[in-house]
Amino acid sequence: MSTRLSQLFVRTLREDPVDAEVASHRLLVRAGYVRRQAPGIFAWLPLGLKVRRKVEQIVREEMEAAGAQEVLFPGLLPREPYEASGRWEEYGDGLFRLKDRKGADYLLAPTHEEVFTLLVKDLYSSYKDLPLTIYQIQDKYRDEARPRAGLLRGREFSMKDAYSFDYTDEGLDASYQNQRDAYERIFARLGLEVVIVKADAGAMGGSRSEEFLHPTAVGEDTFVRSAGGYAANVEAFTTTAPDPLPTEGLPEAVVFDSPETPTIDTLVALVNERHPRADRPWTAADTLKNVVLSLTHLDGSRELVIVGLPGDREVDMKRAEVAFAPAEVEAASEADFVKQPLLVKGYIGPWSPEGAVLGEESATEIRYLLDPRVVEGTQWVTGANADEKHVLNLVAGRDFGADGIADIAEVRAGDLAPDGSGPVELARGMELGHVFQLGRKYAEALGLKVLDENGKLVTVTMGSYGIGVTRALAAVAELNNDGRGLIWPRAVAPFDVHVIAATKDETVYAAAEQMVLDLEATGADVLFDDRLKVSPGVKFGDAELLGVPIIVVVGKGAADGIVELWDRRTGVKTPTPIADLVAAYKQLP
Amino acid sequence: MSTRLSQLFVRTLREDPVDAEVASHRLLVRAGYVRRQAPGIFAWLPLGLKVRRKVEQIVREEMEAAGAQEVLFPGLLPREPYEASGRWEEYGDGLFRLKDRKGADYLLAPTHEEVFTLLVKDLYSSYKDLPLTIYQIQDKYRDEARPRAGLLRGREFSMKDAYSFDYTDEGLDASYQNQRDAYERIFARLGLEVVIVKADAGAMGGSRSEEFLHPTAVGEDTFVRSAGGYAANVEAFTTTAPDPLPTEGLPEAVVFDSPETPTIDTLVALVNERHPRADRPWTAADTLKNVVLSLTHLDGSRELVIVGLPGDREVDMKRAEVAFAPAEVEAASEADFVKQPLLVKGYIGPWSPEGAVLGEESATEIRYLLDPRVVEGTQWVTGANADEKHVLNLVAGRDFGADGIADIAEVRAGDLAPDGSGPVELARGMELGHVFQLGRKYAEALGLKVLDENGKLVTVTMGSYGIGVTRALAAVAELNNDGRGLIWPRAVAPFDVHVIAATKDETVYAAAEQMVLDLEATGADVLFDDRLKVSPGVKFGDAELLGVPIIVVVGKGAADGIVELWDRRTGVKTPTPIADLVAAYKQLP
Repeated sequence: MSTRLSQLFVRTLREDPVDAEVASHRLLVRAGYVRRQAPGIFAWLPLGLKVRRKVEQIVREEMEAAGAQEVLFPGLLPREPYEASGRWEEYGDGLFRLKDRKGADYLLAPTHEEVFTLLVKDLYSSYKDLPLTIYQIQDKYRDEARPRAGLLRGREFSMKDAYSFDYTDEGLDASYQNQRDAYERIFARLGLEVVIVKADAGAMGGSRSEEFLHPTAVGEDTFVRSAGGYAANVEAFTTTAPDPLPTEGLPEAVVFDSPETPTIDTLVALVNERHPRADRPWTAADTLKNVVLSLTHLDGSRELVIVGLPGDREVDMKRAEVAFAPAEVEAASEADFVKQPLLVKGYIGPWSPEGAVLGEESATEIRYLLDPRVVEGTQWVTGANADEKHVLNLVAGRDFGADGIADIAEVRAGDLAPDGSGPVELARGMELGHVFQLGRKYAEALGLKVLDENGKLVTVTMGSYGIGVTRALAAVAELNNDGRGLIWPRAVAPFDVHVIAATKDETVYAAAEQMVLDLEATGADVLFDDRLKVSPGVKFGDAELLGVPIIVVVGKGAADGIVELWDRRTGVKTPTPIADLVAAYKQLP
Repeated sequence: MSTRLSQLFVRTLREDPVDAEVASHRLLVRAGYVRRQAPGIFAWLPLGLKVRRKVEQIVREEMEAAGAQEVLFPGLLPREPYEASGRWEEYGDGLFRLKDRKGADYLLAPTHEEVFTLLVKDLYSSYKDLPLTIYQIQDKYRDEARPRAGLLRGREFSMKDAYSFDYTDEGLDASYQNQRDAYERIFARLGLEVVIVKADAGAMGGSRSEEFLHPTAVGEDTFVRSAGGYAANVEAFTTTAPDPLPTEGLPEAVVFDSPETPTIDTLVALVNERHPRADRPWTAADTLKNVVLSLTHLDGSRELVIVGLPGDREVDMKRAEVAFAPAEVEAASEADFVKQPLLVKGYIGPWSPEGAVLGEESATEIRYLLDPRVVEGTQWVTGANADEKHVLNLVAGRDFGADGIADIAEVRAGDLAPDGSGPVELARGMELGHVFQLGRKYAEALGLKVLDENGKLVTVTMGSYGIGVTRALAAVAELNNDGRGLIWPRAVAPFDVHVIAATKDETVYAAAEQMVLDLEATGADVLFDDRLKVSPGVKFGDAELLGVPIIVVVGKGAADGIVELWDRRTGVKTPTPIADLVAAYKQLP
């Protein structure tokens, strides 16, 4: 096959689009691969569609190799199944909802767990039918609050979503591993380095969950990893609680005046000045900060909770969202404080001289939760629940308790991995895939049971496996470019080779046409820059922008039987006899 | 490739789905090709998806052969372009509309004229860039009032829509012809007979419009055709007006009493009794029926119109909709008559003894329109706009006129084709494709202009070309089945050949497996019914239902080296030596 650039529906742009924040977005628009239709919604031009189809085909081949069978669901679905699973509500503003002419509720599906579950329920009834993994490559819709970064976070995007069905936990483990292996093969074929990190499985009700993150500075996710092999999304990181300490013999708690200490720093300065410690100065890590959060539950009700955590750490709101899901979390407002006169802003603590003690013996209706580091026997400088008063030597387990744990403090480089593999480092990553043991949540909600070997009805256990197809494409573009344009890996390049007729000389032009035919004959898909009124410089610039990895420049040298074989990635141009061109092309890695 | 039926995600059903009105719907569900998700919305199982991809590929290949380039637009689009074209309003209840989290209006696109126009405007600016035809194969959404007949009229369906861009009318004609030719090739490859009929181009503002109808009793469209080659959708049929007749010497109009003549039949009986004609009796065709219609315009305003037509014809409301588009048409209500005391229900006419004459000298604000047959010099029995009074010998052009023509009477077999090719017959058809000269409507609304050879800005002229991909698939299924199941044409069959191991004998089973391998080696995609606990009868029944056109039955005869090669269409089972099977398979047409 070959395509003449003079006929191809494409225009390259010299200027970056004003809304482009990342290289992939900038270059895919400039090189004429995609065009924005609305925030986070794109149209695919011929070049972009060719690359997209190649990425899809790699995903499809690996799904088939993994024994998954392809199906296709509609994007427009009725409310009922999502009502049954609870997601109609849980998805909040992220779900596009609409009504049909009869007033019935519909949605644009963000993923398809519910309807896959119902389809299997419709068709299958016996353990003999399982295991089963079915998948689709389909357009998904999510009404992102801040669609950004072009295709990296769109509102309409192509996704491969697979679902596995088993009737035993061991079966689910095997199906999960099977998809996980396929994902590793897919990303390897796309040339995308990925780190597989533990992810939060919380609100979805599942047991095991991992994300495939591509490490990149433009990634939206933060993850941690240890030299010993631990890797987790920060939302899924669990803080290791230290061993409890004996409380006997510890000094008594001391209440002290602390006017004008609006921050942890001012408190630390005050206590170092007025109540210095012999062995070492007090630091923020010695203080216990008590943060008031407001939760909004699914039923719309609101609840305040107080979380005590070491004063040198901030609350990580993403971790808090996971910890409190499906409730929404925000900092308590001034209005919240006004309604709670027992909460003395700036001086909140788990204990007070007046007896207003939070925790197990809470004096308020508000739950008091503690960071996992605040174990029995640890001593803290903290608020005394009285205006302009703090307390020293307050001992956890002796002087105060809590209603539970809240592991929502920020994770820092140097924190210890929970598996004992040592300190972690932080990195940024882009989520490209997610494998997830859903367990029986959807099957229970929608009544998917099969008869087991003993003729007993058992609830099916499921896995859910997603790859963002268009996001993976954008990730490839993000990873493979330079100042001059895109540099596609051969596996997904829109064309195999780009032939440039670099002069208007008729003999040269005819030679270039012959080379296009010769390259086509090898099975190559050839882009031929046949434009007559375009200068060689513009043609070279367009070739660099478009990013076909192998370029053949047919210039004046063609009269002497020589062309240049240009490696877009290295920039190396190798003079090659025309007679050897096809052989040289075939030998390229 | 081969697939084991024991592993394939499919279940055949013995019972027809309760909502299935047509064979294709019934069989595609029973054979496990599709499943309903909501009215007019389907999920595609592996078998169905395989057929769908084959149909898509045929469409794609013929589009590429026609020089059209593939792009892909989102299904979710912002309101603004459809507002500019007027379609946001015009589409009425048929458009799925929704809002995003910020309250912005979106729609699920029914077709993509607007955004294709804008994309070309974005990329192109010169006549040198044209002609251009770009297309997509994409899911469309229409909120049909009565989704029916399974895939034949869905609310979400796959469509190939192409758009051509030219800067001259001759260019548009060529682009149109090019797509029209491609459509003929596509339907030929799908084995679908089609009649190309003239279609209404009215409301869309275009000049030429044709539909590809597949003649079938389950079709929703009625079309007419003459032996001389004329073919048109009834909505597009134009009635040939007879030549005017001289009015001199015609008898005077005679008003007569006509109590109790609520129908044309009673009127005809009365006039034959009281005012008999010498040469022949009066018939309904001699009467002029005046029908009051209520139009609702796009701006919501309502208007009554009166249409006079021969009393032996009814108004065809579909033709009326086309004639009055984009207004909506319905019969006038009782309330409408109450507001118009000049309209004497049952006695409305174009003339009255009291001087209330409709038409050019209309006594009301209501437009009076006439059927094309009511030409000057024709004589009519009609209402006299007075209670219990009709009039005889009322002569068009002498006694009454009109404000215009309304060609909205039903079309009947025997009516004359407008091109002089003789009388037409009526038939039912299913619309599979539509080619349409849009002209400059969208380009004007959205400002798509290019510089011509003289450096002058000219508005681009466009064509729009659609094929319902999933509907074409359903049409193939509708045409190719019998009482026992589907019978796919080889071009779109989900598998090339279906091998049945018809006994549980291990030797037979091993022989069948070897045949699967041998057939695979020819490049065939083989379905292997390897189910161990299923009787031969059930296997044969499933094979007939699934409809793979070529079936190999490996039964007891395999021990003697003989299998049966079963032609699903003819039902003929040919005993074939195993050694000759591959050769025999390859020789099949």
